Amino acid sequence: MKNSCVPKENNTQLDILGVAERLFREVGFQKTTVADIARELRMSPANIYRFFTAKAEISAAVCRRILGKIEAAAEQIASAPGPASKALRNLIASIEEFNARRFSSDRKLHELLETAYNENWPVVHEHSENMDKILAQIISQGMAAGEFRTGDAELAAILVRSACMRFWHPRLMVECALDPEPTTDQMIDFCLASLA
Amino acid sequence: MKNSCVPKENNTQLDILGVAERLFREVGFQKTTVADIARELRMSPANIYRFFTAKAEISAAVCRRILGKIEAAAEQIASAPGPASKALRNLIASIEEFNARRFSSDRKLHELLETAYNENWPVVHEHSENMDKILAQIISQGMAAGEFRTGDAELAAILVRSACMRFWHPRLMVECALDPEPTTDQMIDFCLASLA
Repeated sequence: MKNSCVPKENNTQLDILGVAERLFREVGFQKTTVADIARELRMSPANIYRFFTAKAEISAAVCRRILGKIEAAAEQIASAPGPASKALRNLIASIEEFNARRFSSDRKLHELLETAYNENWPVVHEHSENMDKILAQIISQGMAAGEFRTGDAELAAILVRSACMRFWHPRLMVECALDPEPTTDQMIDFCLASLA
Repeated sequence: MKNSCVPKENNTQLDILGVAERLFREVGFQKTTVADIARELRMSPANIYRFFTAKAEISAAVCRRILGKIEAAAEQIASAPGPASKALRNLIASIEEFNARRFSSDRKLHELLETAYNENWPVVHEHSENMDKILAQIISQGMAAGEFRTGDAELAAILVRSACMRFWHPRLMVECALDPEPTTDQMIDFCLASLA
């Protein structure tokens, strides 16, 4: 059911991305062609090219949707009431859960993200920047509340993200899957001790 | 010049690895064949197979040599006199330097290490364990000297290694090459604040 307030063009674009994400999940993004997406939508490939110049643009947009969901969850955690340390812990645990779930149930979508990280797609960089902003928001709230010592919240955010990389980097989490330690809790304790 | 105390068998094994490392550096490990290594040593491939069951075993052994050099440098840093915080800083900086130099001057050897990490070769796991031991040694010395608060030095070592992963993981350091922050110094300050 389409929202009548949304222009038709936007709806088509969303339809394309919805179908692309489903096919990427089922068939894999490398095996999915623009023709496959067009066929599912009963439109011509030429119509898809009115919205996306190439398949790479569709792949990046699907990636953006997936990473955007992580950011939305992170924003919700950051704006919830409670101590900053709790928010940081919830944030890292939630990201790890997103990734672990995708890896175990949606392996083909996980491969899309692995490729995006391997090939340094701009969406990955954008995602890191967005996550840094959310982390910095939590950390500066903690600084204002006297929970953390005052300092450069933006830098602290980058440090926490780097320190916790193994939990949200799609390739690292696979590489580290057999290492029981550090757990997210141990790593967060380590980060909190540094910020305190 | 060969050391006459070393059995001939061992010398041949070392010769094979020396030539393999040179060819891996010049031609790349994927393009180098056992026949290429044998030709350089004026021996038959069959003779090489007396020492290594497959090329994969040679590749792993070359990897071990490279990672072993990092471990030797780390051990030297760990046993040098001075505060533990200085040793930790030197250690991380030295590892990053090893990796950065290999990446800029020996790109083909760097690719061997990337593959080893990507495919989770046992030598990589072994290297992490060895580095954890050296890190734990430094940290427990710091704990004994009252420089760090007392605690589980083994766990702290794993946490520091994980936090600093972007500086020594061959793929991550390429992925993060365009991110100016965190620097090794910033990350070490973050870790030291956590240990203090």
